[in-house]
Amino acid sequence: MKIICPKDELHRAVQTVQKAVATKTPLPILTGIYLSASGSELQLQATDYEVGISCTIAATVEESGAVVLAGRYFQELVRRLPGETVEIASSLEDRTIKVSSQNSQFNLLSLPAEEFPVLKPVISDNVMKVQDAVLRDLIRKTVFACAADEARPVFTGGLLEMDGTEVRMVATNTHRLALKKGQLTAGNGTAKMIIPAKILNELARLLATDEPEEVSILWQKNQVGIVFDNVYIISRLIEGQFPDYNKVIPANYATTVKLNTDQFLDAVERVSLLARDGEYNVVKFNFKNNEVIISSNNPDIGKAREAVAAETNGNELEIAFNAKYVTDILKNIDSEELTLSLNTPLSPAGIKAAADDNYIYIITPVRTS
Amino acid sequence: MKIICPKDELHRAVQTVQKAVATKTPLPILTGIYLSASGSELQLQATDYEVGISCTIAATVEESGAVVLAGRYFQELVRRLPGETVEIASSLEDRTIKVSSQNSQFNLLSLPAEEFPVLKPVISDNVMKVQDAVLRDLIRKTVFACAADEARPVFTGGLLEMDGTEVRMVATNTHRLALKKGQLTAGNGTAKMIIPAKILNELARLLATDEPEEVSILWQKNQVGIVFDNVYIISRLIEGQFPDYNKVIPANYATTVKLNTDQFLDAVERVSLLARDGEYNVVKFNFKNNEVIISSNNPDIGKAREAVAAETNGNELEIAFNAKYVTDILKNIDSEELTLSLNTPLSPAGIKAAADDNYIYIITPVRTS
Repeated sequence: MKIICPKDELHRAVQTVQKAVATKTPLPILTGIYLSASGSELQLQATDYEVGISCTIAATVEESGAVVLAGRYFQELVRRLPGETVEIASSLEDRTIKVSSQNSQFNLLSLPAEEFPVLKPVISDNVMKVQDAVLRDLIRKTVFACAADEARPVFTGGLLEMDGTEVRMVATNTHRLALKKGQLTAGNGTAKMIIPAKILNELARLLATDEPEEVSILWQKNQVGIVFDNVYIISRLIEGQFPDYNKVIPANYATTVKLNTDQFLDAVERVSLLARDGEYNVVKFNFKNNEVIISSNNPDIGKAREAVAAETNGNELEIAFNAKYVTDILKNIDSEELTLSLNTPLSPAGIKAAADDNYIYIITPVRTS
Repeated sequence: MKIICPKDELHRAVQTVQKAVATKTPLPILTGIYLSASGSELQLQATDYEVGISCTIAATVEESGAVVLAGRYFQELVRRLPGETVEIASSLEDRTIKVSSQNSQFNLLSLPAEEFPVLKPVISDNVMKVQDAVLRDLIRKTVFACAADEARPVFTGGLLEMDGTEVRMVATNTHRLALKKGQLTAGNGTAKMIIPAKILNELARLLATDEPEEVSILWQKNQVGIVFDNVYIISRLIEGQFPDYNKVIPANYATTVKLNTDQFLDAVERVSLLARDGEYNVVKFNFKNNEVIISSNNPDIGKAREAVAAETNGNELEIAFNAKYVTDILKNIDSEELTLSLNTPLSPAGIKAAADDNYIYIITPVRTS
């Protein structure tokens, strides 16, 4: 193999596939980045068998072929290389790969390219298409609600649901649930799949480009392929039954409260300072006619009390929440005002942006004595 | 105690003393910040018995007195408080301190103020004065060369030396040495003291303000007091004999090499990528007539080779260094060109900015087979 390509594009491609490079693995080949050159393209691939990412860039290919380089070193090296172009050439004599640019020359040992599990694209008629900004929003506004604990795998992923041209993403750890709806650019029929949170987070990061583009999502059995720009991602799907989230969303509320998002967030964050050390980070909310009193009490440190102006419709109510479950959603609400909806001190509450019915968050209260 | 003060100034004062708050200590009182109000001033203090920092700000004192608040919580709270002013008032009934601002009210438990070891200013006729920017430069350009290992305490601090109106700071871990000279605004006679690196780093951080100011340094026995603006720092001095650094600095060199600082730094950093995993991070330098060849070899990863243009006077030479000891100094040289001076492959080398004789760095080579 022998190629010449622009350094900046190579760097971006390495960064794109980098997250799929395995770090702890008994298989050394998975710690490598696979480079394959043919025609006028260089393709980079990495996989840890859970997710695989490939990225293709234009290159001057003087000799086609494939090599595998140690991911960690190759990435650091490409980042620091001088000059505008990089030459990568394999040397048959000593099994090294020469990576050079200006006065820099590195001879990296090659991993056995024939051992690399080259990605097989998902072949399927099951496909939906969506704008990158819509998909990014679906992920960012829900994935934080996933469970970190691996005990129940279905809760460590986000449920992606297609229903005609509507798309929904749902995430829950059973104590709180986030649901975001959007529109597909192409969709047909219904489909459900649970994608690991780790891969969703990585996908949201890769979708954060300036130019709008369409993303194709293909699926087949326990695999999903995500295609956009010059990137191809293959991920396993999480098997298991995601609970019926519609049952979790209350049909009616006895009390609704309108609040300024930033004021409410700042106040909850301050009050939770003293609650953080406790096991459940419990903060009390006393909803009165025109204000909410937020308070916490930590016998070892002290007490906190905040008053925030509120517009309450319905019954006055005292209820306690894990403060983190409240601040997590407040940070994701873009609008100036939010609506908090309640029934009783022990039944689930809803939080949503005042003027957005496509984003719903449900939170279970904490029982206090 | 009851005071009202501007929030931003209180926040800055808390940040200033924060680094002296003890985190791991069997004495709970040292985890607190001491607040003392009298006249029209509020003084904050913290100490871990190694270093003590006090900071005084203007305040409206309605009732003088002293309290001690849990450092960690008080700092977080002040950072997040709303509004422009803060009220702090002790309540006799429940031994709590009320910290309030706008609609926020916190009642923090008070630690027993009478147990706090209030700082005693260093009373001494031994004094030198120096501009803050000069002192900051003395510290930043030397302290990185200290030993991290506590085995030989004198090497974990920087030697501050007064000689008339000249001031010098020297740091070494016995494998490399950094010396920086400057001018005092007031000094008389000679003095030497070894100040812990941790405190020097903290001092450099606190001196990073926009307005130039004069710093007074007073010393007595095993203590030094550092006074500037509204801040007072008291630190213990490290006891022991600092070696005679003049013996370490070669009088003459057989070879001198002029190099572009940035080009040389970038090349050494790239070559060291492959050497980093080795025990000594060894990089080889082959100084030729008009270039230096920098190389490393890691049997598990590969080889690196860089050529950098150089202007060499004297013998050609091959020598090996710990790459970190080279890059550390290159990052601290502000000028475009540097001079590297050598004798033999086994004798200490010198590195300095091409046009600055007040900053000298000595580095011991690594013996390679």
